[in-house]
Amino acid sequence: MSIDAAAEPHRISDVRITPVAFRDLPLLNTVGVHEPLALRAIVEVVTDSGITGLGETYGDAGHLERLRAAASAITGVDVWHVHEIADRIRRVLSGDRSTGGHGMSGMVTGSSTADRVLSPFEVACLDIQGKAIGRPVSDLLGGAVRDRVDYSAYLFYKWAGHPGEDDDAWGAALDPEQVVAQARRMIGEYGFGAIKLKGGVFPPEEEVEAILALRKAFPDHPLRVDPNGAWSVESSIRVGAALDGVIEYLEDPTTGLDGMAQVAREVAMPLATNMCVVAFDHVKPAVAQDAVQVILSDHHFWGGLDRSRSLGDICATFGLGLSMHSNSHLGISLAAMTHLAAATPNLTYACDTHWPWKDPADDVIVPGALTFSEGAVAVPTAPGLGVELDRDALARLHERYLAGGIRERDDTGYMRRFEPGFDPTAPRW
Amino acid sequence: MSIDAAAEPHRISDVRITPVAFRDLPLLNTVGVHEPLALRAIVEVVTDSGITGLGETYGDAGHLERLRAAASAITGVDVWHVHEIADRIRRVLSGDRSTGGHGMSGMVTGSSTADRVLSPFEVACLDIQGKAIGRPVSDLLGGAVRDRVDYSAYLFYKWAGHPGEDDDAWGAALDPEQVVAQARRMIGEYGFGAIKLKGGVFPPEEEVEAILALRKAFPDHPLRVDPNGAWSVESSIRVGAALDGVIEYLEDPTTGLDGMAQVAREVAMPLATNMCVVAFDHVKPAVAQDAVQVILSDHHFWGGLDRSRSLGDICATFGLGLSMHSNSHLGISLAAMTHLAAATPNLTYACDTHWPWKDPADDVIVPGALTFSEGAVAVPTAPGLGVELDRDALARLHERYLAGGIRERDDTGYMRRFEPGFDPTAPRW
Repeated sequence: MSIDAAAEPHRISDVRITPVAFRDLPLLNTVGVHEPLALRAIVEVVTDSGITGLGETYGDAGHLERLRAAASAITGVDVWHVHEIADRIRRVLSGDRSTGGHGMSGMVTGSSTADRVLSPFEVACLDIQGKAIGRPVSDLLGGAVRDRVDYSAYLFYKWAGHPGEDDDAWGAALDPEQVVAQARRMIGEYGFGAIKLKGGVFPPEEEVEAILALRKAFPDHPLRVDPNGAWSVESSIRVGAALDGVIEYLEDPTTGLDGMAQVAREVAMPLATNMCVVAFDHVKPAVAQDAVQVILSDHHFWGGLDRSRSLGDICATFGLGLSMHSNSHLGISLAAMTHLAAATPNLTYACDTHWPWKDPADDVIVPGALTFSEGAVAVPTAPGLGVELDRDALARLHERYLAGGIRERDDTGYMRRFEPGFDPTAPRW
Repeated sequence: MSIDAAAEPHRISDVRITPVAFRDLPLLNTVGVHEPLALRAIVEVVTDSGITGLGETYGDAGHLERLRAAASAITGVDVWHVHEIADRIRRVLSGDRSTGGHGMSGMVTGSSTADRVLSPFEVACLDIQGKAIGRPVSDLLGGAVRDRVDYSAYLFYKWAGHPGEDDDAWGAALDPEQVVAQARRMIGEYGFGAIKLKGGVFPPEEEVEAILALRKAFPDHPLRVDPNGAWSVESSIRVGAALDGVIEYLEDPTTGLDGMAQVAREVAMPLATNMCVVAFDHVKPAVAQDAVQVILSDHHFWGGLDRSRSLGDICATFGLGLSMHSNSHLGISLAAMTHLAAATPNLTYACDTHWPWKDPADDVIVPGALTFSEGAVAVPTAPGLGVELDRDALARLHERYLAGGIRERDDTGYMRRFEPGFDPTAPRW
């Protein structure tokens, strides 16, 4: 090849943002229950050189509005100039004081609006860079240090089906026995080597029972439980004592740095978080208090892949563990998560993913690029993210978004349709 | 272009390491005086695709030996797989317990051997990446946020010439008046907009006088003084009081985190360091004590450009300022420093450079790629680092290395040839 082959600029000439909806199951968490449709936004960045890059992010109305403002600000910028793109997005959002639209039903708040909005554009730019130079995105992040990325079996308490509908294929999981059955099925299908239980749904004692039942059924699988801050400091300490030696980390047992720091002083296992440290501004106070020992990164709210890699370096520098958080997502996000995890040496925990809860028929990418075996996804080696948009599928999921009527994730509101007095206020126990 | 144009691997097939020596002037510091020759090692990494990348680092014997061990370990690795290269270097050096060879005459100790050895190879890999895809190195670091990088006028107390030789072109600088004259000349020639004085040479009161004389002569230039830890805590606090409102930061007034933390509590200006925080392991204890407020990055000992960029993100995250340290260097390093500084948004201080002290005839790169105007270097826009090796010049400087006989920087030993009782033990005052 000629040394100048890729030297032409790749300037952003167009951005398409398409909200989509895909079927979701009645998964329970401490603020309510997943609605029948989950929202995402698919971001396509197009360059004047004719390359399209893909990004995926939250689909909530407020976020969509901010994405559109950002899109209009970055036209003309070369996709290699990510600092410039970030700066333009910061400036266009600088007057934004709106809240909500975080896509996380109130469970994760306080992340940086600018980083949340930057993320899908940064991922799309890396996808374009990779396509332009014939390299996988992992190479743009220092190169993969592993060729397969381990994910965890992400168990949820759940209803048998959405109210008024038939039972879904997974059925109910409302007690330890059903949770173990769910784990057996998920691990049987995907081969996961680690298990996470979303808690905060039932009194902590019941959830401890479920974890102990999982430990009995899977003696060698690392276990985690995440009640999303549902517990008081006292309850958290009690659970910590009950699960000493049983779980690899305890995730967000209680809310806030002060509470986490109190718990951390009293329990034996590391505390993990994707709630009280969700932006760079939160790291210093967390370190000062030794409030958390593991940070769950998430490129969707940490500003994209490169800034998430910086978060990894920060964790390595400050002796913090690093894991990865997930929301309901489609294949573009799975590809991005996999490239990031592959190129982050100290990301040694199995990453979370909601992937098994998604109907395999529901996606916006051409099938086949990402498959699980033995609980891991092989890191794509094709240029860019290594996934291709299926325009028919995108159109179908966009139609479902238009027809579905949901414009904002609202687990609490959906729960209250069936349990009007439901109160998600933490601590619930 | 075809999307696969750059997809061929660029595997390291050969590494050449050439020690060179270039003329240096009798610049004084707290551990002694610069010898007539400064040492560097020029690293050429060659790929099986026929691209050569350049790196520049210390030329001390111990370091050269480690560079050679590293070179033998990285053959066959693709230049995009920097994590893999770093890992191989860590492994090959894991048994290394040798000390010395840091190229800094004992002033900077405690930096990571693995990061120091990785640095020139990482820079060379980025140079190759840039050449392969027709992009400047700054684009591989997120893109330049400034098209010119400001440097500071780095003033030194100095003898009129090396003992036994004629006076050099700069002449003596041994009192405030001569220091101001040196500044006038350097700023006249280069246009620098900030001034740093290397101190630790005379009693602090004399150096305070020099700073105050500089303030009078250059009322608008930000000023810094760096005695390389020569002062006791008490002396540092006294100088801090005397220079309150005069200097933008006080660099390494005393040694060690404890001492720096004591000084920081008592003086008004930020404390900067390239002595007590010189590796990622040092950041956490420094933050815990609030011992320093500005870190001087240096890609030569922080593991290359990408890890230095991470250091920048760490500084931004922990509210630390970021500046840049320099040693005597040639053009490859100046290019690397300029790309890094250009792509580091929070590197807002003018960077240090020894450039004016180097004879313009002494370099290993083809002249013209890097020039100062108004105190700044324009960020090269050619592919890679944007500098080209001059093989004749490299051979000349290598011959000088061979003939010169110096194999280890030793400012103290050279000083003792003229002042046998010279004692660099800190604190000197």
